[in-house]
Amino acid sequence: MTEVLDLAKRLIAAPSVTPATGPVFDAMEAMLAPLGFEVTRFKRGEGEEGSPEEAVENLFAIRRGPPGSKHFAFAGHVDVVPPGSGWASEPFEPEQRGELLYGRGAVDMKGSIACMVDAVAKVPADAGTISFIITGDEEGPALHGTRALIDFMREHGHQPDLCLVGEPTSVNRLGDMMKIGRRGSVNIWLEVEGTQGHVAYPHLAENPIPKLVAMLAELDALVLDEGTDWFQPSNLEITDLEVGNMAHNVIPAKAEARISIRFNDRHSGASLSEKVGAIAEKHGGVAKPIISGEPFLTPPGEFSDIIAAAVKAETGIDPEPSTTGGTSDARFLRAVCPVIEFGLCNATMHKRDEAVAVEDLEVLSRIYARVARAALAV
Amino acid sequence: MTEVLDLAKRLIAAPSVTPATGPVFDAMEAMLAPLGFEVTRFKRGEGEEGSPEEAVENLFAIRRGPPGSKHFAFAGHVDVVPPGSGWASEPFEPEQRGELLYGRGAVDMKGSIACMVDAVAKVPADAGTISFIITGDEEGPALHGTRALIDFMREHGHQPDLCLVGEPTSVNRLGDMMKIGRRGSVNIWLEVEGTQGHVAYPHLAENPIPKLVAMLAELDALVLDEGTDWFQPSNLEITDLEVGNMAHNVIPAKAEARISIRFNDRHSGASLSEKVGAIAEKHGGVAKPIISGEPFLTPPGEFSDIIAAAVKAETGIDPEPSTTGGTSDARFLRAVCPVIEFGLCNATMHKRDEAVAVEDLEVLSRIYARVARAALAV
Ligand SMILES: [Zn+2]
Ligand SMILES: [Zn+2]
Repeated sequence: MTEVLDLAKRLIAAPSVTPATGPVFDAMEAMLAPLGFEVTRFKRGEGEEGSPEEAVENLFAIRRGPPGSKHFAFAGHVDVVPPGSGWASEPFEPEQRGELLYGRGAVDMKGSIACMVDAVAKVPADAGTISFIITGDEEGPALHGTRALIDFMREHGHQPDLCLVGEPTSVNRLGDMMKIGRRGSVNIWLEVEGTQGHVAYPHLAENPIPKLVAMLAELDALVLDEGTDWFQPSNLEITDLEVGNMAHNVIPAKAEARISIRFNDRHSGASLSEKVGAIAEKHGGVAKPIISGEPFLTPPGEFSDIIAAAVKAETGIDPEPSTTGGTSDARFLRAVCPVIEFGLCNATMHKRDEAVAVEDLEVLSRIYARVARAALAV
Repeated sequence: MTEVLDLAKRLIAAPSVTPATGPVFDAMEAMLAPLGFEVTRFKRGEGEEGSPEEAVENLFAIRRGPPGSKHFAFAGHVDVVPPGSGWASEPFEPEQRGELLYGRGAVDMKGSIACMVDAVAKVPADAGTISFIITGDEEGPALHGTRALIDFMREHGHQPDLCLVGEPTSVNRLGDMMKIGRRGSVNIWLEVEGTQGHVAYPHLAENPIPKLVAMLAELDALVLDEGTDWFQPSNLEITDLEVGNMAHNVIPAKAEARISIRFNDRHSGASLSEKVGAIAEKHGGVAKPIISGEPFLTPPGEFSDIIAAAVKAETGIDPEPSTTGGTSDARFLRAVCPVIEFGLCNATMHKRDEAVAVEDLEVLSRIYARVARAALAV
């Protein structure tokens, strides 16, 4: 068994559905300490089990290079989404069948983290500073995960120059895609109040629904932008309508809706909240936004070139720099330094029988080692 | 105690929340039989208690005039809406305090029915045929009430020439308003199906909400008509919206709405169902109508003149011929003969402490007697 396969199995064998604590971090510490890393683990959150404030564990590990050397960071998460049912093997008992290793987290992203650990073993300690930014809460509310790690790093003066997040960004073949950015996300609750009444006497009532409908029609017709060189156009979806009026003859007192906007770097959560709020107000309603994440973009250049070269050398493929898909912890890490996501194939992520090709683990380990060396040599 | 007051008290004292059966009909029969009426009582409906098919009682009573004489019908209901709480006296124990008689049904419409009975006692039997069309299910689903009575009349060859429904049509003073028509009513359920998906990948989903919003915007902008000489403009209200999507990041698979149209005699339930159905289809949805009632109009003329003259003679007031408000059993009776509604003041109908002025009972009894005599003399 190769070293990286063994590492991946050890991580998968530690059940760690969000929010992860304990054993999976014990495993991480046991892997990193022998490689010369100074490991710090801490918990955050004091809420009850099952609440968004439930305690979560984080790990920051650093191996310092010579004074003045560059600092390259690997970031990722050891928590996983619930396995669900119907697996061919036990989700938390890693099982190799043929060329594949099965287990929850195989690609998202315990497999990638095993590759990171295996990679740093191949990078000489004097090449520069390397750190691991590892959370147990990426798949959950993410309140006390990577954000807490960033606070910790600021407090202790750890400032990476570049950061690679190991999310499974590859689509059909390992290496075919990296994420140089992600769209931002905001959900906005819309509400119009009226005056309840009887449909036979509409002049005594004030129906809030036509106002909401006009508001939604205007929002649906909005063209937020035409896209940019690196981002697809921002997109607004109406995701819910709610009145809940059982009485056929009654004009209701309130009408509600919810929209979800995925937006590129032409906007911010605040600018969109303001724009939607003005439209809501115009139609007699109010808008209550919750911003899930701001967009980030690490424009193609030095960092993406380093990753592309490493991928090309190991696989012969030119990775496509993409900004599609959902959000990741890169939305937080962007505030620290340039960040790019690159990792395993995502076909089975969050699914039953999640699996990684054993060969992909070996290739990704070599790619990560190339990236680290090149990033430290810049 | 006057005769009409006594009759009203006897009816109120028989509890008869919809669907009414038994005692209140016993009281009706005991009043009408001595006046020479042939009384038929029958039940319809075989459903469980509380279901729309629950059994309901109806009463048809007829006093035949000389061969070839006219046939005038009084129509009404002895069921009442539930009393609710907070009454100053027991709702089913008629109580006279000052000039008012309190009790559930005092104006809607046991008081009016007492006036009808009292009135016919004053009309000579040889003036013509008089009938009573009395149901125990007007305030409820009305499935087995007046419709069953109309079937019964058809089967037995009873064909009134004119029909007066005793709903409480007066507003501020007894006699200030009669209803020469009522708008029709249709509720239409609207539904658009789409394809569920994730908001980050809208091209893989098909959001049904924008289609529903566009459909509703078009429906809300419809001008059905500008009103007629006797009717206010038809009115469409959107009464409900429903998606019920709790997941912020999910584009839902289905969106629903409900509209309620109150319409004048420029339209029918079928014509509006077709019009709305076409708009729904245009936007990728379907419309499912339930027609509650067609509009009716008894244009001002001989019958309204008879009522107006009777009201004027007893009160000095010229009643306004109106078509406002909700539906009544006149929607069914219109198919039999010209029908007009006229009765007590409606200020306390369906409310706590429902009450009628004792003097109004006496005046209405005299008005009804004048109407019956005049209608039979036409
Ligand atoms: Zn992940
Ligand atoms: Zn009534």
